[in-house]
Amino acid sequence: MTGDTQSWRRAAPASPVTLDDVARRAGVSLATASRALGEHPHVAAATRARVREAAEALDYVASPEAARLAGGPTGRVAVLVPHPSRWFFGELIEGLEAALRAADLDLVLFRVGGPEERAAFFDRLPARRKVDAVVVLAVAVDDAEHARLASLGVDVVVAGGRVAPYPSVGIDDHGAGRQAMDHLLHLGHRRIGLIAVDDDARASAWRTALADAGIEPEDELATTVAWGGEGGAEGMARLLGLRTPPTAVFAHDDETALGAIRTLRRAGLRVPEDLSVIGVDDHPLAALTDLTTVAQPVREQGRRAGELVAAALRGDLQEPLAEVLPTRLVLRGTTSPPGAPR
Amino acid sequence: MTGDTQSWRRAAPASPVTLDDVARRAGVSLATASRALGEHPHVAAATRARVREAAEALDYVASPEAARLAGGPTGRVAVLVPHPSRWFFGELIEGLEAALRAADLDLVLFRVGGPEERAAFFDRLPARRKVDAVVVLAVAVDDAEHARLASLGVDVVVAGGRVAPYPSVGIDDHGAGRQAMDHLLHLGHRRIGLIAVDDDARASAWRTALADAGIEPEDELATTVAWGGEGGAEGMARLLGLRTPPTAVFAHDDETALGAIRTLRRAGLRVPEDLSVIGVDDHPLAALTDLTTVAQPVREQGRRAGELVAAALRGDLQEPLAEVLPTRLVLRGTTSPPGAPR
Repeated sequence: MTGDTQSWRRAAPASPVTLDDVARRAGVSLATASRALGEHPHVAAATRARVREAAEALDYVASPEAARLAGGPTGRVAVLVPHPSRWFFGELIEGLEAALRAADLDLVLFRVGGPEERAAFFDRLPARRKVDAVVVLAVAVDDAEHARLASLGVDVVVAGGRVAPYPSVGIDDHGAGRQAMDHLLHLGHRRIGLIAVDDDARASAWRTALADAGIEPEDELATTVAWGGEGGAEGMARLLGLRTPPTAVFAHDDETALGAIRTLRRAGLRVPEDLSVIGVDDHPLAALTDLTTVAQPVREQGRRAGELVAAALRGDLQEPLAEVLPTRLVLRGTTSPPGAPR
Repeated sequence: MTGDTQSWRRAAPASPVTLDDVARRAGVSLATASRALGEHPHVAAATRARVREAAEALDYVASPEAARLAGGPTGRVAVLVPHPSRWFFGELIEGLEAALRAADLDLVLFRVGGPEERAAFFDRLPARRKVDAVVVLAVAVDDAEHARLASLGVDVVVAGGRVAPYPSVGIDDHGAGRQAMDHLLHLGHRRIGLIAVDDDARASAWRTALADAGIEPEDELATTVAWGGEGGAEGMARLLGLRTPPTAVFAHDDETALGAIRTLRRAGLRVPEDLSVIGVDDHPLAALTDLTTVAQPVREQGRRAGELVAAALRGDLQEPLAEVLPTRLVLRGTTSPPGAPR
C-alpha cells in the first residue's frame, strides 16, 4: 500500500477513501476493519487479510483516528512546557520537533506553567486518550501525577532535566556549576558570590567548589532570586550592598548573569576589571555580550529525548535511563583575575 | 452528561467506556453512533436520541477521534513556526496556546523553516486530515500552498504578520519603523544608517522618514544582513567602514541591534555618545541592555490569533480581517542627540 500513497494524495485530497468504504468492501463492521488495520490482536487472520485486500484495492490511507478508535496509536506526543517563550525551552522544542517528525509523530504542545495549568492538563489527558506519549520539559512531576501517567499507560520521557523514574536527557548541573566555579577559582578569586534561582545542583556546586578550595562558603555571598534578567539585577544589587562585595559572581544562567551585569554597569563598575561574571547556557546573546559561560547543548537534549520517545513507542527502549550530555566552559570577556583592591 | 464527567474520570481512567459500548447499547452501528454524537446532519432524530440516551447511561465521554471519524472536528489546530527557539515565535506560541486552550483546542506544532519542511508539511496535512485549522506564524504562503489549504477546507489564520487573503493579527511594520526613525530625526540625526533583514516595510520606513525630513536616502547607508546578532554585528562593521559613518542606526529588531552594539564596543565607540542605536520588539534583553526600541505586543498577537481561530471554528468569524495591534517607542539609554564631530 505504501507505494501508492503518494498518487492517492495527489488524486483526491478533497474526497478521500474512508474506513467505511473499506469495511463495506470487505463485508465487515467498521470496528472490525479498524482493528484489522490497527494490528489489534483479537482479529482472525482471514478477516485481517480480507480487510487489507480491500484497503489495498481502494488505496486507503489509514488515519490516526481510525487506528486510535481501535486502541491503536494516535501518532501524537504531548509536550509539557512551563515557558515556551524562553530560549531554553524553545531550543528543546526545536530539537524535539525534529526528532518526532523524523519518526512521523506529531508534537502537541501544552503550556504547564503554574499548578492550575498542570492540574488542568492531568485532568484532561485521560478523558481524551489522545496521545501515545508525554515529554516533560524540565518540570517536576508529583506523586498524584505519576499515578495518573501510570494509569494511562503512556510512555513518559523527560528532557532538560531529570525526573525519576522516567528516561531522561539532561546535563550534569552540578558538574556545570563546578566548571564555572573552578574557572573563577583558577583565576585567583577567593570571594565569589552566587546568584541562584533555586537551591539546586548548581547552587550546591558553589558550596563544594569553595570547600574543595579550602574556602568557607559564607551565606551572605549566596542570594536566591526569581529567574531572569530582573532577578539577576536584583541579586547583584544585594551583593554590592555587602560590607565586602565579592570579586566574582557565578550566576545560575546567562539571562540572570546579564541582569547582574546591568546592575554593575549602572553602579559604574567595570566587567571584568572590577568584578567577574559567569553564567550557564551559552544563550545566543552571551556571544553578543561577550559573556563567559558554561555551554550546554539544549537543542541536542530535545532531539535525543524525541529519539527516546520514538524508541519507547517502537518497544525498543530497554529500561529507564538517564542520558547526560556534556557541558563546556566558553571563555569570553566577562572574567579575569581579580583586580587591585578597591 | 457534563455533570458526571468528573466522577467518571476519577473512577475508571484505565478502562474507559468506548463508542463501541454506546453503539451496542443503542443498537446502532459504530458509524451511526459516531455521527449521532458528532452532530452530523444525516441522522434521524429518534436515532440521535437513542444514542444520546445510551451515552448518558454509560457516562460516555466523546473522544475527538470518534467525532473525526464521522467527519466532525478534531479539536486540533496546526501551528506553523519557522523558528520555535526565537523569542518572537516563542511569545506568539505562548499567546496562541492560552487562547486555544481556553477554547478547548489542542496546539500541534510544526516547524517549517526551509522550503523542504514547508513542502513536507503541506504534503502530509491532507493525507492525515488531522486538524481543523492552521495558524501560520509570520510565514509567507505561496500559490500552490494556498490551493492546498483551500482544498482541505480548514480555517487559516495568520499571526505576527499578514498573508492575504487570510484573517491576520500583526503590527504596522511601516509605522513601527517610522516611530524609530522619527525618534532619531527628532534627536537631530541626519546621517542615519539602516541594518535591514529584508526589503520589508521597516526598511521602506527608513526611506520615507528620511525623504519626509528632506534628506536624500543614500544607498551606502542601508545594509541588509541575516537575521540576528551576528548579522547585526556584521552590518554595523560595514557601516563603520564607510568614509563617513552614520551618527545613528535603525536596526530591524532588538537582537540585530544588540549585535550592532557589540561591534561598536569592540571598535572602542561609546553608545549613545558616539553613535545611537534603536531596534524593534522590546525583547526582554532590551531592558537589560538599556536598548531604546519600538515595543510590539507579541504574546497578544498570538492570543488574538487564537481567538480568531476559535471564532472561525464556531462559524462566528464574519469575513477576512487584518487586525493591527499598536506599537510604542520605549526610550532607554542607547539613543541621544548626535555628539561632537569625531
